Amino acid sequence: MPNPFPSGATMLKARDAVRNLPPYDPPSNGREGLRLDLNENTAGCSPRVLARLRELTPQEVASYAEREPAEAAVAEFLRIQSGEMLLTNGVDEAIHLLCETFLEPQDEVLIPVPTFVMYEISAAATGARVIAVPADDSFRFPAARLLSHITSRTRLILVANPNNPTGAVARPDDLLEIARCAPNAAILIDEAYFEFYGKTLLPEWRNLPNLFLARTFSKAYGLAGLRVGVLAGNEAQIQMVRRAVTPFNVNSVALACVPAALADQEFVRQYVAQVVAGRERLQEQLRCCGIVSWPSQGNFVLARVGSQHLALIQGLRQRGILVRDRSRDHGCEGCVRITIGTEEQTDSLLAAIRAVLDQIGVGSAT
Amino acid sequence: MPNPFPSGATMLKARDAVRNLPPYDPPSNGREGLRLDLNENTAGCSPRVLARLRELTPQEVASYAEREPAEAAVAEFLRIQSGEMLLTNGVDEAIHLLCETFLEPQDEVLIPVPTFVMYEISAAATGARVIAVPADDSFRFPAARLLSHITSRTRLILVANPNNPTGAVARPDDLLEIARCAPNAAILIDEAYFEFYGKTLLPEWRNLPNLFLARTFSKAYGLAGLRVGVLAGNEAQIQMVRRAVTPFNVNSVALACVPAALADQEFVRQYVAQVVAGRERLQEQLRCCGIVSWPSQGNFVLARVGSQHLALIQGLRQRGILVRDRSRDHGCEGCVRITIGTEEQTDSLLAAIRAVLDQIGVGSAT
Repeated sequence: MPNPFPSGATMLKARDAVRNLPPYDPPSNGREGLRLDLNENTAGCSPRVLARLRELTPQEVASYAEREPAEAAVAEFLRIQSGEMLLTNGVDEAIHLLCETFLEPQDEVLIPVPTFVMYEISAAATGARVIAVPADDSFRFPAARLLSHITSRTRLILVANPNNPTGAVARPDDLLEIARCAPNAAILIDEAYFEFYGKTLLPEWRNLPNLFLARTFSKAYGLAGLRVGVLAGNEAQIQMVRRAVTPFNVNSVALACVPAALADQEFVRQYVAQVVAGRERLQEQLRCCGIVSWPSQGNFVLARVGSQHLALIQGLRQRGILVRDRSRDHGCEGCVRITIGTEEQTDSLLAAIRAVLDQIGVGSAT
Repeated sequence: MPNPFPSGATMLKARDAVRNLPPYDPPSNGREGLRLDLNENTAGCSPRVLARLRELTPQEVASYAEREPAEAAVAEFLRIQSGEMLLTNGVDEAIHLLCETFLEPQDEVLIPVPTFVMYEISAAATGARVIAVPADDSFRFPAARLLSHITSRTRLILVANPNNPTGAVARPDDLLEIARCAPNAAILIDEAYFEFYGKTLLPEWRNLPNLFLARTFSKAYGLAGLRVGVLAGNEAQIQMVRRAVTPFNVNSVALACVPAALADQEFVRQYVAQVVAGRERLQEQLRCCGIVSWPSQGNFVLARVGSQHLALIQGLRQRGILVRDRSRDHGCEGCVRITIGTEEQTDSLLAAIRAVLDQIGVGSAT
């Protein structure tokens, strides 16, 4: 092929680490209908958030945002010091910042799988060596295997707790043991789904300075569109991460709305209660249809539908319900992840699942 | 000092590149008054943006944002293909992504100085070697010096055009020559202040695939709080950058408001006209007071106040006007950067400057 550039110029070569990144293509367009595919809060956000959003002035929109007041509000809510945390452009940025702060090429990163794919992408982008530590068929947290993979080169361990897409949780003692056994590694416990579970390692970093925690406003608080994550940890370690962050990483709408979101715990409580009830109802129905699902502490359920999983996804889509194909995740052949919504949405979901399963002949014996 | 951790744990060491980063501490709290310190649009944002913002539904807030519709709108406005650009979390993220995509440790990065400090920070964070190429006292773009620093290891050249904080511009031919002479380097022309200048290299990347352009909605469009930057360039090169970006990097409010902002060109036109007129009035007054300032194509003026520059900053602050100390930038001893606002704000600014200069005895002979 002749060089298309009259100047004779050629293409730049991206870094190998970037060129070889696995793709991450979550659903990002045409998401019409009941969207049970991204673990969002399907009840929306608190009316207080919407009210605050509608009070925004042209000056607030036009000004670079000040992170400090919102950070103070979050710190107070978490009963930690402002210096022990940092607000980020979603947890995605928190993960990215940890990788950027601590990882050199050839460092080792341990990631129990299956899990949230951004861990691998952000770690691999640094040129570090990503070591996936698989769970067994039970999807229980592979604590012993993780411990056995820790070496002096282990510099980062990324754990979602509760885990996504399985909903499994790790024992706090196992996580602390891992942090103790990997003193050269930053340990991120990503508690994005904390509100559906209720157990936290906060503020264990006061004993273990290599421990970091993430929280998010994207799930239970219903602010996924606004992009606010929380990275918490030992103050001196967080200071290091702050060196790598840009000053205006979180937008002003998010920063204005965070205190309003925190102030409406009743909104969160009601939504979480519906999720917990809906989770049980869905798992019961799946059980009745002979479909395996795993105990979940998140706002979602992973179900092993088997060879018909694409037919289920397609059938639900035809009925206006979006769920997520997770069959390419490690150990998740034939698996579908279904976000739990409000009580009414669960009614619709269960009816639709029953109809589709009948149609495609899965679980029809029950 | 005894180890404060009962577990005997010690602190993690951040990467050298991060530990050694220069600090960047823009004003980020207590910015009460007329804020002429961050080159924001002091007229706010378009009423159409505010109207769109107020229409946001709880579902839009709670959903992960879809970048594609806003990218299509921006691409259409710029008359380029969607694949030739990417929306970013402010230009800060565009800079970061270019560094992450192309820079290996020990690569060379050329940055004409004085300029926007995030270039150095993002480049240095990768471990690359940052080479500052100083302008002479005229602050003219140091094209010849830049060319003389290009080597086979040059992998990135970052140029703000118009430049911040000087307001100076480079000749298009000089920029293209640099891109031609550095075929192994990505060349970013950061046109954040394009609307106050009017000249662009868009879409020159069709001849020179190593050329990238940045635009922003933070300046003339008045959306600094929302965080939307544009990175444009050759489609295959942008594809590489897209591998490094997280899928939900731009928030849903920003994505919803971008088309509304683009639709109100009259708002931009009126604000830019006021800036251009105010820029001349301020420079005329500074000249009358014997204070040197440089020709500016941005929405700001750099003025060499001299040894009394802190007194001027302080005096203006007492009168409720914030301006920016730039005296620590290369070659900017005694310099203050003043954002130009609306006609009325310029009236206030000029009166306040005259009063403060009288008070501190600068320019009193005129």
